[in-house]
Amino acid sequence: MTGAPAALLFDVFGTCVDWRSGVAREVAALASHLGRADIDPEAVADAWRARYQPQMETVRSGARPWADLDVLHREALDEVLAEAGFDEVPPDARDELTLAWHRLDPWPDTVPGLLRLKAVAVVAPHSNGHVALLLAMARRAGLPWDLILGAETAGAYKPEPRSYLRNLELLRLRPGDAMMVAAHNGDLSAAAALGMRTAFVRRPAEHGPGQTTDLEPEGPWDVVAQDIVDLAAQLGA
Amino acid sequence: MTGAPAALLFDVFGTCVDWRSGVAREVAALASHLGRADIDPEAVADAWRARYQPQMETVRSGARPWADLDVLHREALDEVLAEAGFDEVPPDARDELTLAWHRLDPWPDTVPGLLRLKAVAVVAPHSNGHVALLLAMARRAGLPWDLILGAETAGAYKPEPRSYLRNLELLRLRPGDAMMVAAHNGDLSAAAALGMRTAFVRRPAEHGPGQTTDLEPEGPWDVVAQDIVDLAAQLGA
Repeated sequence: MTGAPAALLFDVFGTCVDWRSGVAREVAALASHLGRADIDPEAVADAWRARYQPQMETVRSGARPWADLDVLHREALDEVLAEAGFDEVPPDARDELTLAWHRLDPWPDTVPGLLRLKAVAVVAPHSNGHVALLLAMARRAGLPWDLILGAETAGAYKPEPRSYLRNLELLRLRPGDAMMVAAHNGDLSAAAALGMRTAFVRRPAEHGPGQTTDLEPEGPWDVVAQDIVDLAAQLGA
Repeated sequence: MTGAPAALLFDVFGTCVDWRSGVAREVAALASHLGRADIDPEAVADAWRARYQPQMETVRSGARPWADLDVLHREALDEVLAEAGFDEVPPDARDELTLAWHRLDPWPDTVPGLLRLKAVAVVAPHSNGHVALLLAMARRAGLPWDLILGAETAGAYKPEPRSYLRNLELLRLRPGDAMMVAAHNGDLSAAAALGMRTAFVRRPAEHGPGQTTDLEPEGPWDVVAQDIVDLAAQLGA
């Protein structure tokens, strides 16, 4: 048991919402519409997500200027569909499918857990998603954020330190008064290095039944929780 | 009757919350505590607010670098208390009184109106208040913002065009898809010049019983509303 911090900042993709099922659902609908029963929707979702970190790295490294996730997702989609042999998807359907990343469902514990936590602390996303994406997602899924923070308000992608520090500056909080919540050890390592508190939330099905990464906490995180309701309970919320 | 826009951006001080009563309440408590029955709390509130636009102008003009409203309010307070002959207020009480601007009550129609509007459109503050101030205010007053925008997310004070334009960019909206809502004709003039839709909300008691400004709409605003509930009704929310 540890007291609640002034603010909890959440990773979103994987930690709060189930990107794999949400993206696969829309891929499946499109494949059905185009008569392509051979397309594996989960494999498309996984391949799409696999391009995410390398793409952001091109921004972090300065190799390309800032680009939001709609731009990065749309670029990656062309490669993913080509690899899957699903070339007949027309451009407007590709644009629409890119917005599947705005239409992801929360895990069952996410909304009840956030509502409990919001009663005692500020709750906000700290996602690499841009504001408009996180806003559309929140309104659809009922995520009760107090405000929306993330890569775009900071002008930098996690795990760059200035991504965390700029958002703490907007909150007027010292790092030790805020807690980063994530299902990913990497997000927490970067937060802990800056003095933030940390909570690891287990999401063993984020990558489907064959998940091999982030199954266990890999650092001295302040809290390890089964889900966001359990996090609320452990923080006394 | 006109349809709801995709997003409604609200001026906050005066339009959504009653700054004069809220500030006067805390001045009155301090005067009582210090045995100064001669202090006029509303006059102090008015004098404090009167320094607001001239102070922001020093930032807009580039005469000084960015400073948030806590800084500007704290600076002005020393002058206001000196003019009122209320010099015995100690520094820590001045710091605390500055936070009265975080603790303002909504007008009675604000929360019910915002809840109705939120069901059909994004609702966000577009205030010269900084994020932390607007966040504390929203949590205390129950303002159900979808996200918090304003001068700080834009890096510019209203009515500078880039203040409006940067926040529209964060929302990925064209000006015509967003509506500025304010009790101040000046806020609306700047928004209309950029192509935003406009709603004037009457707040004839913002400045107390002797109010002489912003009693009537002074431009061809798209909506003129008695309050925020009336705005919701006129937008079909």
